[in-house]
Amino acid sequence: MKTISFERLQQFITNAFLSLGMPDADAQTMGALMADADLQGSDGHGVIRMVPYTRRIRAGGVNVRPQIKIVQERAGMALVDGDNGMGHLVMKRAAEIAVEKARATGIAWVGSQWSNHAGPASLYARMALPHDMIGLYFAVGNANHLPPWGGLDMLLSTNPIAVAVPSANAGPIVLDMATTVAAYGKVKAKAQRGEMMPEGWMIDRSGQPLLDPKRAEEGFLMPIGGYKGYGLSLIVGLLAGTLNGAAMGKEVIDFNHDDTTATNTGQAICMIDISAFGDVDAFKARVDTLATDLRASERMSGVERIWVPGEQSEARRVRYAAEGIPIAPALWTQLDTLATELGIAPLGD
Amino acid sequence: MKTISFERLQQFITNAFLSLGMPDADAQTMGALMADADLQGSDGHGVIRMVPYTRRIRAGGVNVRPQIKIVQERAGMALVDGDNGMGHLVMKRAAEIAVEKARATGIAWVGSQWSNHAGPASLYARMALPHDMIGLYFAVGNANHLPPWGGLDMLLSTNPIAVAVPSANAGPIVLDMATTVAAYGKVKAKAQRGEMMPEGWMIDRSGQPLLDPKRAEEGFLMPIGGYKGYGLSLIVGLLAGTLNGAAMGKEVIDFNHDDTTATNTGQAICMIDISAFGDVDAFKARVDTLATDLRASERMSGVERIWVPGEQSEARRVRYAAEGIPIAPALWTQLDTLATELGIAPLGD
Repeated sequence: MKTISFERLQQFITNAFLSLGMPDADAQTMGALMADADLQGSDGHGVIRMVPYTRRIRAGGVNVRPQIKIVQERAGMALVDGDNGMGHLVMKRAAEIAVEKARATGIAWVGSQWSNHAGPASLYARMALPHDMIGLYFAVGNANHLPPWGGLDMLLSTNPIAVAVPSANAGPIVLDMATTVAAYGKVKAKAQRGEMMPEGWMIDRSGQPLLDPKRAEEGFLMPIGGYKGYGLSLIVGLLAGTLNGAAMGKEVIDFNHDDTTATNTGQAICMIDISAFGDVDAFKARVDTLATDLRASERMSGVERIWVPGEQSEARRVRYAAEGIPIAPALWTQLDTLATELGIAPLGD
Repeated sequence: MKTISFERLQQFITNAFLSLGMPDADAQTMGALMADADLQGSDGHGVIRMVPYTRRIRAGGVNVRPQIKIVQERAGMALVDGDNGMGHLVMKRAAEIAVEKARATGIAWVGSQWSNHAGPASLYARMALPHDMIGLYFAVGNANHLPPWGGLDMLLSTNPIAVAVPSANAGPIVLDMATTVAAYGKVKAKAQRGEMMPEGWMIDRSGQPLLDPKRAEEGFLMPIGGYKGYGLSLIVGLLAGTLNGAAMGKEVIDFNHDDTTATNTGQAICMIDISAFGDVDAFKARVDTLATDLRASERMSGVERIWVPGEQSEARRVRYAAEGIPIAPALWTQLDTLATELGIAPLGD
């Protein structure tokens, strides 16, 4: 597969947003964050989104010149109104505010309203790491694919949770998970590749396993742990959506089928300053010990290696930074077409 | 089944702790919280624990006259040293501190170290509700039953999460879940009743389903959503244990097999003041709408009713308050024996 350097990918995305009318600094931020998604292998949330983002911006569904502002504030919290800007810009700002506040209070929580899809959840939780903080991120997904447990009405989304915890030498521990067994993007990828889904990802309206991803619209995703995942998705939605006056439940706009209505996406970021609890180096050393113990666990037959959450993404960051980020041929072609449409330089050759 | 009033159950538990040397106010708190666990149907975490708690206190494993104190503090956080007291006392204090701080800063997080088992997670998250706050609670379980994904060494516990969210008229939304498919207490209950476990609760060391709960020590619990539940359990342990300088991983004491070593249990409570984000009544009305929409969802064939998390516990609170709390005959006999041993009045007749 052809590869591209992080820097060229970032520049391509930046140029695309510039051509769509976004101010320079914001376009730079979009380039950096979306290329960072691809760098860690979150390829369903990186440059692949440039095509639908462009479609939505051109349809007037996203504001490329938002006035992002704080509308509620206390010492340990803020509520940010994203003015219908790209979620990446809103949540980067939110994370920066949370870090600053947490340094004073020990913990801070910043919610968003009138935001949009922000790419992989882990990007924002990871913003805690350079500050020796723990980051927690919650978001309302941009399409409902999950009914309440026992129900058929899709009132909930895959509402993800991400948490990032620094260590000394073991690499950060980064959890980034949908509250459904599979994220909807994985279903789409199976459909594109013409593959069947494993049992447990989706069920149809009669409760039977749904295995053909081309029939995905006839069924719905399964929550992790049955009713527990239903509860988790609901709680994430309450924290990231309802608390912020953002869309939740029936209010969620399906951005796969509606390019014009503001999504009023809600997200939340929480930063915990480790130094408030004690010595940071001692904490990091304890995380190292824990990661080492987990990795050294005796393994089940056939298991080659035990991973700590985030370890595989971290390994990809190192490898792709050195060797380039792989871009599938079909996507490369799409991006060439997009470059022509936007009048920007192509990704490369 | 025979029932007992909340007040008599509370008095019985209070008397038991008084006889074990606990100061009056603390014994009252223990009675109130443990009876509250039974009142909501968390019967694996209520008066049934009086026997093992007594055994542990008599063995010197718990301090009945702890000096609970704040050892780290900022405007939005505190770290509480429980001085090896009962977890209920430590976490009630932690929740009170968090509520007070959150009122000023909008959010507060209080962790514990040198605490102990504190009963059902939901008790502490629910302490947010009278203050129009959202409560989040995380705890390290008191015995490791979960290996890392693909592993065989039991380095993690069922590390629970509880979240409580107030509404106007729909009842509070209260999620209280282990990060494993089944809590270990449910396995013990199946064994006591001579029943088999459903597939998915436990596996043996070869990865095969383990169905006989009497063989539970030959296998381990399954995390919810496979590797996702492993990640969640680890994150909860990092937040509630490692961050607080409390036991995590190999340091966790199995309180089923060790009555004397201080467990150094870690917990964390986070309180979010809804009024910091906007109008409280508007928030509660939106939670009502959401709960109503979820309950009104079209149902799968054979499903009688759709529940919102915490709804069944709330219904039990109402019913048991009116009709009394059911106590199984075998437990009643155990408690009569305990009453004789402690020289206190029996539960009743």
